[in-house]
Amino acid sequence: MTNLIEYAAASDEVRAVYDDIRTTRQTEYINNFWKALANHPPTLRRTWETLKEVMGGEGDIDPLTRELIYIAVSVTNGCEYCIASHTAAARAKGLTEKVRGELLAIVATANSTNRLANGYQVPIDEQFR
Amino acid sequence: MTNLIEYAAASDEVRAVYDDIRTTRQTEYINNFWKALANHPPTLRRTWETLKEVMGGEGDIDPLTRELIYIAVSVTNGCEYCIASHTAAARAKGLTEKVRGELLAIVATANSTNRLANGYQVPIDEQFR
Amino acid sequence: MTNLIEYAAASDEVRAVYDDIRTTRQTEYINNFWKALANHPPTLRRTWETLKEVMGGEGDIDPLTRELIYIAVSVTNGCEYCIASHTAAARAKGLTEKVRGELLAIVATANSTNRLANGYQVPIDEQFR
Amino acid sequence: MTNLIEYAAASDEVRAVYDDIRTTRQTEYINNFWKALANHPPTLRRTWETLKEVMGGEGDIDPLTRELIYIAVSVTNGCEYCIASHTAAARAKGLTEKVRGELLAIVATANSTNRLANGYQVPIDEQFR
Amino acid sequence: MTNLIEYAAASDEVRAVYDDIRTTRQTEYINNFWKALANHPPTLRRTWETLKEVMGGEGDIDPLTRELIYIAVSVTNGCEYCIASHTAAARAKGLTEKVRGELLAIVATANSTNRLANGYQVPIDEQFR
Amino acid sequence: MTNLIEYAAASDEVRAVYDDIRTTRQTEYINNFWKALANHPPTLRRTWETLKEVMGGEGDIDPLTRELIYIAVSVTNGCEYCIASHTAAARAKGLTEKVRGELLAIVATANSTNRLANGYQVPIDEQFR
Repeated sequence: MTNLIEYAAASDEVRAVYDDIRTTRQTEYINNFWKALANHPPTLRRTWETLKEVMGGEGDIDPLTRELIYIAVSVTNGCEYCIASHTAAARAKGLTEKVRGELLAIVATANSTNRLANGYQVPIDEQFR
Repeated sequence: MTNLIEYAAASDEVRAVYDDIRTTRQTEYINNFWKALANHPPTLRRTWETLKEVMGGEGDIDPLTRELIYIAVSVTNGCEYCIASHTAAARAKGLTEKVRGELLAIVATANSTNRLANGYQVPIDEQFR
Repeated sequence: MTNLIEYAAASDEVRAVYDDIRTTRQTEYINNFWKALANHPPTLRRTWETLKEVMGGEGDIDPLTRELIYIAVSVTNGCEYCIASHTAAARAKGLTEKVRGELLAIVATANSTNRLANGYQVPIDEQFR
Repeated sequence: MTNLIEYAAASDEVRAVYDDIRTTRQTEYINNFWKALANHPPTLRRTWETLKEVMGGEGDIDPLTRELIYIAVSVTNGCEYCIASHTAAARAKGLTEKVRGELLAIVATANSTNRLANGYQVPIDEQFR
Repeated sequence: MTNLIEYAAASDEVRAVYDDIRTTRQTEYINNFWKALANHPPTLRRTWETLKEVMGGEGDIDPLTRELIYIAVSVTNGCEYCIASHTAAARAKGLTEKVRGELLAIVATANSTNRLANGYQVPIDEQFR
Repeated sequence: MTNLIEYAAASDEVRAVYDDIRTTRQTEYINNFWKALANHPPTLRRTWETLKEVMGGEGDIDPLTRELIYIAVSVTNGCEYCIASHTAAARAKGLTEKVRGELLAIVATANSTNRLANGYQVPIDEQFR
């Protein structure tokens, strides 16, 4: 239902983003996510710029930890594509099977305690405000 | 609607958990979450044991990063109590305002790209499988 | 931000629903949810008719179990109003503190295992299809 | 796991709904969603009646905009079937690739800012109450 | 992307859990969920212990009702694996097509009213607090 | 827990964004959302630029419809702040009580049918692919 736009068929505006993805990531491969977003060039541009800055720019959180946070969100939302692509990205940045297990254990636990807090309608402690 | 069970009114089973929380966390303070869970002692015991192991036990992910992952889930789920209590916990473990900002930027970005992947029904790239 | 429409100020269309709620529930009290929905009478009517049939009509699932299922959804979605009002409704139908604890333990566990299944991208077993 | 009930095998109660769907939509095609719901005829009837009224009845919101709102919800929930079927429905009502891109950009942005509001625990401004 | 760990290739720690699953469920079959969790033995052990206790242990909620609650959560979260596996489990415990229909009708209704309560920002009635 | 940064206390970087918000929206009022985001200036800047472009820039979707889509997402996510602030924004752009009712009816219906599609594991029709 969604046309994936290849480099050869892309407009100059789209190609400029594809070129920047290639340069930044040092790979020829453009993954399907970007080829889908290319159907609406302003969304492609904005999303890439934000992702490049947030996931790859200067910051106190190291690159692997950023991926762990990203995966935690994607697992909670059940976004299959995002889990698959960012688990691959995290592995390229050093994710071991053990750390993956620890990550998912934290995500599972938080999803569980979130509901206990909701279900028991726990009032926020004064000192946490 | 939920009775918060204080130490003085707690059964021996509940007190044993409260004592372990105090010892483990080295504080007299028992927060409302545990006082609410005490209404069902098996849930109190299981939840504490899991949380203690997952958030505080041996592992390759450091304590502050565990809190960042926990907050990422809680923010995505919109659990007010959990955001408030774990932001406080993270601050006690060294969370700065800058790192908090970076964390929330990643969480916001992932929630955004999760929906773009959904909306465009992006097929998973062969190499991510 | 939302005007709560009282019986005295309601149109005949809205009053007819309020009257049916009162007769069906055998109470004079109309709760805020319905007073808010009365701002759009077709939504008030449709929602009441569906709820009356689904939660109160003929069926193989008993009334208290229906409330447990309803609460499980509301806790997962984090809908404060719905958790509060249906926990009260369930209590009126016999919900004990022990059953509430068991319910929330199941809800917490399911929210946890849902994410482990997502995170590990577990393929569905042939026999479950 | 779910039996899809074809017209030939359907009860009179189910056929009456199928007939109404065909008449209303002016097509012979009954999509899988309705064939699945036919396993529980009261749910089939109620869901069709509500959908017919809400998506196709009198109202100030035009038909294409209703589909945009429907897709926004389905994308946020990650419901694959709903995204696929309503994107097709929207195209039949005039959805262009450009509008689809704008829609998904709004959905992505809202999902992002929703989490920033949660994460920073922003208090509601007096004037928005 | 996730290695499924078979009994023959499993460590003693993992085999002990597999053995307990087999004994408790009185079947040789270990489903994929556990084979995926075996990649992180502590998560396998904790998850099995919790699930065994919450879904199979002593309690006032009968086994089929526990599955209905579990399915309600999984449907709300859109977890495909969990819906498929627990619908199968519920069938083995007596779930009929009629009860499944009633369950999904309640889940659908609650998801609908949860959003009406959110959207109209309905204030909680004093008596529900 | 979150410091709201007023204009007087803001850095030049933050003031530049505040000034642009004031000019673009033609109001002196800076709402709490932006004052919270100002704790992490890069997030403030990026979020404002995206929102300005997506909600206020050139496009085929009219301003009120953009707000309806935004509210649909926020209601589905249960983000109180976002529902309150964007319902106010939509009113300023012409949202009537009737259209609000129609919007919430569509949101409620979609949330309901999303779960029926999930629960019945409905396979996607060939023609929707």
